[in-house]
Amino acid sequence: MLEITQTMLEDALAYGRAFTSQGKTAQYIPYLRHVDRDLLGVSVQTVDGRRFSAGDSKTLFTVQSIAKVVALALALQDRGEKYLFSGRVGLEPTGDPFNSIIRLEVDRKPYNPFINAGAIAVVGAIKGRSGSEKFERLLRYFKKLCGSETVSLCGEAYLSERETGDKNRALAYHLKATKMLEGDVGEDLDVYFRMCSLYVTAEDIAHLALVLANRGLDPATGERLMAAEHARIIRTLMLTCGMYDGSGEFAVKVGYPAKSGVGGGIAATLVDRMGIGVFGPALDVRGNSVAGIAILEYLSKAMDVRLF
Amino acid sequence: MLEITQTMLEDALAYGRAFTSQGKTAQYIPYLRHVDRDLLGVSVQTVDGRRFSAGDSKTLFTVQSIAKVVALALALQDRGEKYLFSGRVGLEPTGDPFNSIIRLEVDRKPYNPFINAGAIAVVGAIKGRSGSEKFERLLRYFKKLCGSETVSLCGEAYLSERETGDKNRALAYHLKATKMLEGDVGEDLDVYFRMCSLYVTAEDIAHLALVLANRGLDPATGERLMAAEHARIIRTLMLTCGMYDGSGEFAVKVGYPAKSGVGGGIAATLVDRMGIGVFGPALDVRGNSVAGIAILEYLSKAMDVRLF
Amino acid sequence: MLEITQTMLEDALAYGRAFTSQGKTAQYIPYLRHVDRDLLGVSVQTVDGRRFSAGDSKTLFTVQSIAKVVALALALQDRGEKYLFSGRVGLEPTGDPFNSIIRLEVDRKPYNPFINAGAIAVVGAIKGRSGSEKFERLLRYFKKLCGSETVSLCGEAYLSERETGDKNRALAYHLKATKMLEGDVGEDLDVYFRMCSLYVTAEDIAHLALVLANRGLDPATGERLMAAEHARIIRTLMLTCGMYDGSGEFAVKVGYPAKSGVGGGIAATLVDRMGIGVFGPALDVRGNSVAGIAILEYLSKAMDVRLF
Amino acid sequence: MLEITQTMLEDALAYGRAFTSQGKTAQYIPYLRHVDRDLLGVSVQTVDGRRFSAGDSKTLFTVQSIAKVVALALALQDRGEKYLFSGRVGLEPTGDPFNSIIRLEVDRKPYNPFINAGAIAVVGAIKGRSGSEKFERLLRYFKKLCGSETVSLCGEAYLSERETGDKNRALAYHLKATKMLEGDVGEDLDVYFRMCSLYVTAEDIAHLALVLANRGLDPATGERLMAAEHARIIRTLMLTCGMYDGSGEFAVKVGYPAKSGVGGGIAATLVDRMGIGVFGPALDVRGNSVAGIAILEYLSKAMDVRLF
Repeated sequence: MLEITQTMLEDALAYGRAFTSQGKTAQYIPYLRHVDRDLLGVSVQTVDGRRFSAGDSKTLFTVQSIAKVVALALALQDRGEKYLFSGRVGLEPTGDPFNSIIRLEVDRKPYNPFINAGAIAVVGAIKGRSGSEKFERLLRYFKKLCGSETVSLCGEAYLSERETGDKNRALAYHLKATKMLEGDVGEDLDVYFRMCSLYVTAEDIAHLALVLANRGLDPATGERLMAAEHARIIRTLMLTCGMYDGSGEFAVKVGYPAKSGVGGGIAATLVDRMGIGVFGPALDVRGNSVAGIAILEYLSKAMDVRLF
Repeated sequence: MLEITQTMLEDALAYGRAFTSQGKTAQYIPYLRHVDRDLLGVSVQTVDGRRFSAGDSKTLFTVQSIAKVVALALALQDRGEKYLFSGRVGLEPTGDPFNSIIRLEVDRKPYNPFINAGAIAVVGAIKGRSGSEKFERLLRYFKKLCGSETVSLCGEAYLSERETGDKNRALAYHLKATKMLEGDVGEDLDVYFRMCSLYVTAEDIAHLALVLANRGLDPATGERLMAAEHARIIRTLMLTCGMYDGSGEFAVKVGYPAKSGVGGGIAATLVDRMGIGVFGPALDVRGNSVAGIAILEYLSKAMDVRLF
Repeated sequence: MLEITQTMLEDALAYGRAFTSQGKTAQYIPYLRHVDRDLLGVSVQTVDGRRFSAGDSKTLFTVQSIAKVVALALALQDRGEKYLFSGRVGLEPTGDPFNSIIRLEVDRKPYNPFINAGAIAVVGAIKGRSGSEKFERLLRYFKKLCGSETVSLCGEAYLSERETGDKNRALAYHLKATKMLEGDVGEDLDVYFRMCSLYVTAEDIAHLALVLANRGLDPATGERLMAAEHARIIRTLMLTCGMYDGSGEFAVKVGYPAKSGVGGGIAATLVDRMGIGVFGPALDVRGNSVAGIAILEYLSKAMDVRLF
Repeated sequence: MLEITQTMLEDALAYGRAFTSQGKTAQYIPYLRHVDRDLLGVSVQTVDGRRFSAGDSKTLFTVQSIAKVVALALALQDRGEKYLFSGRVGLEPTGDPFNSIIRLEVDRKPYNPFINAGAIAVVGAIKGRSGSEKFERLLRYFKKLCGSETVSLCGEAYLSERETGDKNRALAYHLKATKMLEGDVGEDLDVYFRMCSLYVTAEDIAHLALVLANRGLDPATGERLMAAEHARIIRTLMLTCGMYDGSGEFAVKVGYPAKSGVGGGIAATLVDRMGIGVFGPALDVRGNSVAGIAILEYLSKAMDVRLF
């Protein structure tokens, strides 16, 4: 394994830039449609405290599905893995698109926490007497994991999510019908829409990935933010299910755990070494950042860090 | 073909009574769970003005899916068949259970107006500036078709439907997500829950079936309640899709159009001859009245009226 | 109801001719690809012995799925309806394409005898010590039902079927795996391919439909060719499932039982009145003759004979 | 990371033995039904030449799905990854059982090389003028990868596979129908049945896993048996798809690549360190060796070698 350097990161960015024209921004959420697809940024933070950035690493974007990682970590903290994985959500990858409802009619339990149905079930398991309390707890935790006090709701994105969120409503009510969701569906959905609409930067999600890489301990503050065992479970699920229905191919091409969002972000985590955050809103057909994958593949080869 | 007689009807009732113990009342709607499963009634009304009844023909029960017939008739009146069948709902039977969501992910348009998804799309097409206005129009039409001013909401059933209606909410939001439903989902669902919770008697639905048999003209009043063409389309759909996923077997065994509801009612229609209403809340696994089917089969053979 | 006349039939043919250009011949079977799509013929035979023909009513074409009617009649004769419908094949329409395999993985029993899987299961139930014996029995019966000694195998079509029959092989082996088929799969498939490749004319299938309309009795010879009860079951299934996944729409538009084949034939049956055979190889997307449906719709309105 | 020792292996075996009673041998293949479910063995071979064994490590069992690894390696050698993965088989895990046919009707290309449909497509891509030649090539390669000349066909298992292989025939003909299989289906299926029926020992599959761990180079002979890149791809697919529809849970619990077979074997591979072979024929509901998983989980924790 080779060390990361600033030059390496800039080469990766240059390599990735060639790919932005191959994708397009998410079309089904009005807010995302108008984001500039040529934006591109990357940030690396190592467990021994070094930080590197290149490109639009401080540009705000909506975290979207990467929030599922934070929700899962909080639900694990609140309920423990036994409760969560035996009764609420599974651990198996599916080959289905992220918002598919088909399997819910056959198997009540969503297959994993990173498809929409699974993430909604996870949100349902977070503790809180109301949706607001759940979201407040989640947001506070989010900020800690990102090492940033500036994480905040993008109101326009939230309204956009809420307006176009009917497929997610269908998933949520189906979960409710089969007792996989027990509280108020409307409130849980609202938490889901809000957490997907949080503004973050590539640096923020690099820090989130760093905490996962450092087995739950924030190297900057020395604070334990999640149990080592939970960080391990999340890293594993990121590898098997983190890149939608492109997870298998990503594992072959890039070879370490990552979680993408349709906002264009990807958080990638190299255990005991570093967290990586990339941002490039041009997406491939599965909803993953095209240039983001290219950058991660470049870094994977340059540092020779594939797990397999 | 033989004439209907009071004796024939009483023999049919006696024959049907042997079957009530083979079924059970709908378990998934709390209100229905506690209905007496041994109730049994039948009513026949002929186009030339004769009326026969036997058993619990005046007992109130909730109309449930039989309301889909009324909603379809009203939506056809409001929008015409071209609008409705090209863009909102299909004409094809499916082998799926009535509340299945699976096909919606593949084909946006619900297969027919008598599965739940299709009926919700039909309710969406009924005119009205609000849910209340839609429901008022529907209720007024309902009373006319039943030739009864006493049709009214069963509050307990409605609350029960609403409380357990999450699968229907999932269907409705899925329809909204794919633009098959355009108005306010909550209001349309409320109309759906309310129409399913209307109190009717076997005599009421016999009259509804009579109007269909008489090609849309109420023989009692001489009033045209629906276009002859719409009555014909509805009779056809009742034959191919009216008895949930038991429609094919019912067509073979009984052989004329009918629509069932999980409240235990079945409305059967013999064109140019008569309408039949039966009520027996003990259901088979598909949700059809066990004794009701037995009575209709008995009458079909006794009068020799199978269409095939 | 109005009487059929030669003029009416010729008007129907003229009406149908406008539709041939809207369809195309079956592309997936090489033999069918090269059939002239402008051919069009119709034949009517009444239970009181009148016969009318117009257009290419004596042109040979391959019977394809219409053979499923004959196989079903023979299997009913061999095994009885109880054996056949409780253990081998269902009575329910599906909204699926004719060659779909999806439901077999969930429900072992094919949904009805007119989808390919169901028809293969029906062929498996026909008696015979070998495939050859089964086919010989079937062919003999076929000739009787068509009132024609000239029904014979189209060798080119058979080879074409066999070469491109892998989807049907998949269905057959799936049926074997779930014990819905018990004999030699290869031999049963061969019977299936051969029966689909029989050469018939519009007049032949009009006679088959006539026997069904006359409740199993051949009016020409006075011979009983199938039990009245079996003819009734088959007519019912033709109405609910006879036109592939266009059966529901056909029931609404035309309104009497019919069975189509991708060779371009349709056999339609009006109980106690007549059998109709049409042939027009230009197909719609579901595999039904476009001009054939138009002719049947014309006749249905002209004679006012819709069942509903 | 800790070193492997003989004591550690024996402790793992003792730990695993408690689990054999929780599973049962594969019931759907007659040959496997009668295997003694209490057999249990494990073998470890390290890249630096050490070998450890405990229990029934020299007992013959049928390799079953572990053969899919060998077939994939040979097809990659014969055709290259581009040909194979763009046109023949995917890289994505599915949540479906190993022999599911449902997805093939929607997506022609099987999702990955370790479900049955995918493995049959892979066999189809192996070079050879006949089935026999394909199998001869495969067997020769198999022996090399296992470092054993004694790998040979278990005739009884082969007959058993062939007799009960109708679901696999259905898959194969479906692949043929969609052009994912191009040669003679019968011959390719025969290769598939034969490769699954090969007799191996825990030591044999430990050696196969060792070659994968050593990046394609046999440490015993110094011979390169597969490209390093191919070994890497196979290790990755073993992690995401190697344990049937229990792959996600296995990744979380055990955390390194493994491939199971319903004969009770599991080959697990720790890159740059060792290959592990276990054999315990008592299976869980997904078809994985219960005690085998327990042993691998024990070793994973004892050596602290989880990838995540």
